[in-house]
Amino acid sequence: MAIVKNLRAIFAEVPTGYVEPGKHVTIDESQTIDPDKVQLDGGFLVKTLVLSIDPYMRGKMRDPSQKSYSPPFERGEPLYGYGIAVVLRSENSAIQTGDHLYCRTLRYEEYSVYKDASAFRALQNVGVPWTLYVGVLGMPGQTAYYGWKEYSAAQKGETVFVSTAGGAVGSLVVQLAKRDGLKVIASAGSDEKVAFARECGADVSFNYKVEDTNDILAREGGIDIYFDNVGGKQLESALEHAHDRARFIECGMASIYNNPEAYTPKNLMRIVQSELRVFGLLVFRLADKYQDEFFQVMPRLVKDGQIKFKEEIVYGLDKVGQAILDVGTGANSGKVVVIVSEE
Amino acid sequence: MAIVKNLRAIFAEVPTGYVEPGKHVTIDESQTIDPDKVQLDGGFLVKTLVLSIDPYMRGKMRDPSQKSYSPPFERGEPLYGYGIAVVLRSENSAIQTGDHLYCRTLRYEEYSVYKDASAFRALQNVGVPWTLYVGVLGMPGQTAYYGWKEYSAAQKGETVFVSTAGGAVGSLVVQLAKRDGLKVIASAGSDEKVAFARECGADVSFNYKVEDTNDILAREGGIDIYFDNVGGKQLESALEHAHDRARFIECGMASIYNNPEAYTPKNLMRIVQSELRVFGLLVFRLADKYQDEFFQVMPRLVKDGQIKFKEEIVYGLDKVGQAILDVGTGANSGKVVVIVSEE
Repeated sequence: MAIVKNLRAIFAEVPTGYVEPGKHVTIDESQTIDPDKVQLDGGFLVKTLVLSIDPYMRGKMRDPSQKSYSPPFERGEPLYGYGIAVVLRSENSAIQTGDHLYCRTLRYEEYSVYKDASAFRALQNVGVPWTLYVGVLGMPGQTAYYGWKEYSAAQKGETVFVSTAGGAVGSLVVQLAKRDGLKVIASAGSDEKVAFARECGADVSFNYKVEDTNDILAREGGIDIYFDNVGGKQLESALEHAHDRARFIECGMASIYNNPEAYTPKNLMRIVQSELRVFGLLVFRLADKYQDEFFQVMPRLVKDGQIKFKEEIVYGLDKVGQAILDVGTGANSGKVVVIVSEE
Repeated sequence: MAIVKNLRAIFAEVPTGYVEPGKHVTIDESQTIDPDKVQLDGGFLVKTLVLSIDPYMRGKMRDPSQKSYSPPFERGEPLYGYGIAVVLRSENSAIQTGDHLYCRTLRYEEYSVYKDASAFRALQNVGVPWTLYVGVLGMPGQTAYYGWKEYSAAQKGETVFVSTAGGAVGSLVVQLAKRDGLKVIASAGSDEKVAFARECGADVSFNYKVEDTNDILAREGGIDIYFDNVGGKQLESALEHAHDRARFIECGMASIYNNPEAYTPKNLMRIVQSELRVFGLLVFRLADKYQDEFFQVMPRLVKDGQIKFKEEIVYGLDKVGQAILDVGTGANSGKVVVIVSEE
């Protein structure tokens, strides 16, 4: 192999609203690499295969003065996040050439040399596409699974409301809830996603942009659990129609990520009135408790076709900016993954 | 005894803001009663001794179309709530003449005949004023005790923030937290209440109308527990400065009871970011679990002078409307009780 370009997706500028590809995220083509000869200094060289595009990334594209659970991206440097890479060369005894590595802080560039192997895990593929390991078997699937197990206190016959139910996290929550014998009310922002949530087993599935969430939840007799990915108006509706001692699993608030002036619920007093329990969910904090169980249970179910999922695959590292925008606006129609290289 | 007047405090009109005595709550003097001769029909006649005035009552002075955990007062009928009454006559074998009864739905009138004894409990006084049984030993004390035991998950060395810390509930939370070895940050709305919270053991006590809650919580290094009686801006500050996995005990939101346009927190995303746990607290739902323990522990501590409390006693049933207003504005300087009769 000779010297090749090494494309990198750079965090160039802090957006105030939606991400503009080419402005807030740029593609740098200036770097080159010689995969055969690049110095490893005891580290290892990987080629990026798959990059995950997730809503939380928008939260890291912020000014460093704003604190949050996860550090901000560094301006002028590549984005990083969940991804799969294959090892081309290694001077680290724990990492073998040909290994497929899973990483939550993979740099969004075509080739990388790393020294520290602690953020990487070699994957044993049960015979499904690698892309699933950043989707239904990756962080989004784990988020749904851990959150549901830890906080739902689900009882057969109860009713759960799931927002972004056509998405990577929500669609698995729908299926986990149905497997536990619950009634599922699902909301999504496009007819396609509404249809997918119904395919996943939702008893009621509606487009929150067309139908009124309050009307639906009132008609269906209220809820015992809300799995929240959006915050804002739908959270307000869920609070309004929560039964006594209902559980709220707060996974994300997509309605505010791109809108600093977003609507905030006015009826927090419902927490007192109905003795609600509201739990913030961070997937990586629950990994020690549930990850082994997850990898015992879920890859098999996926391989056996017992779990539905939807991927939207785009090709080429240069599509990262557009993909982040699509996830922000909801224009995507499945878990978005970027295939950087086919190996 | 001859025929006497039977004053009644009537819910006359639904307020939109603060209660106006004489308009929203009126005193009806039109009824009379002959305590010696009134027909009991198998029931019992009581004379009201003590009535409790509590912030939650404002929530019941609403239009019946608004649902809540507790039914609205009925317009044209007497208010009702926590109180102590003495039995003058009884045809019910479970109720003895001379018994002092505790009731959470006592009608706010001087004399009453009841048929159903199930809402009443005969009190065994350990030797403290009866008024305490609607205060530090009544619903407010039980609210603090049950909420702290059930939801705080308090660990020695942690920091708790308590709002309305000079009030009937908050001042006991301060003391329970200190007994458990926590650092206590207390807020209140008057210098007198700030001083009382400090007397109760608060390490930091401040007037939230004068000092900025955000500044105080930042300076003190954040919080592990928030015992919330107010909602609004202070809740927003508590969210902002909550440590990972902090617990929020949502007992009330006094900032909104008299103000439908009240401020609502803009930073609910903090629940996700710091994996917060938020619990709605309704005291009567926890009584089965904690009431026996409470009555074993607390009356003795109070009698032995180990618990501080503050009462504001007013005399005469005609003061009920003004007392409700004072509790709403925070003009009171202790747990407000109305002594209707000295026996």
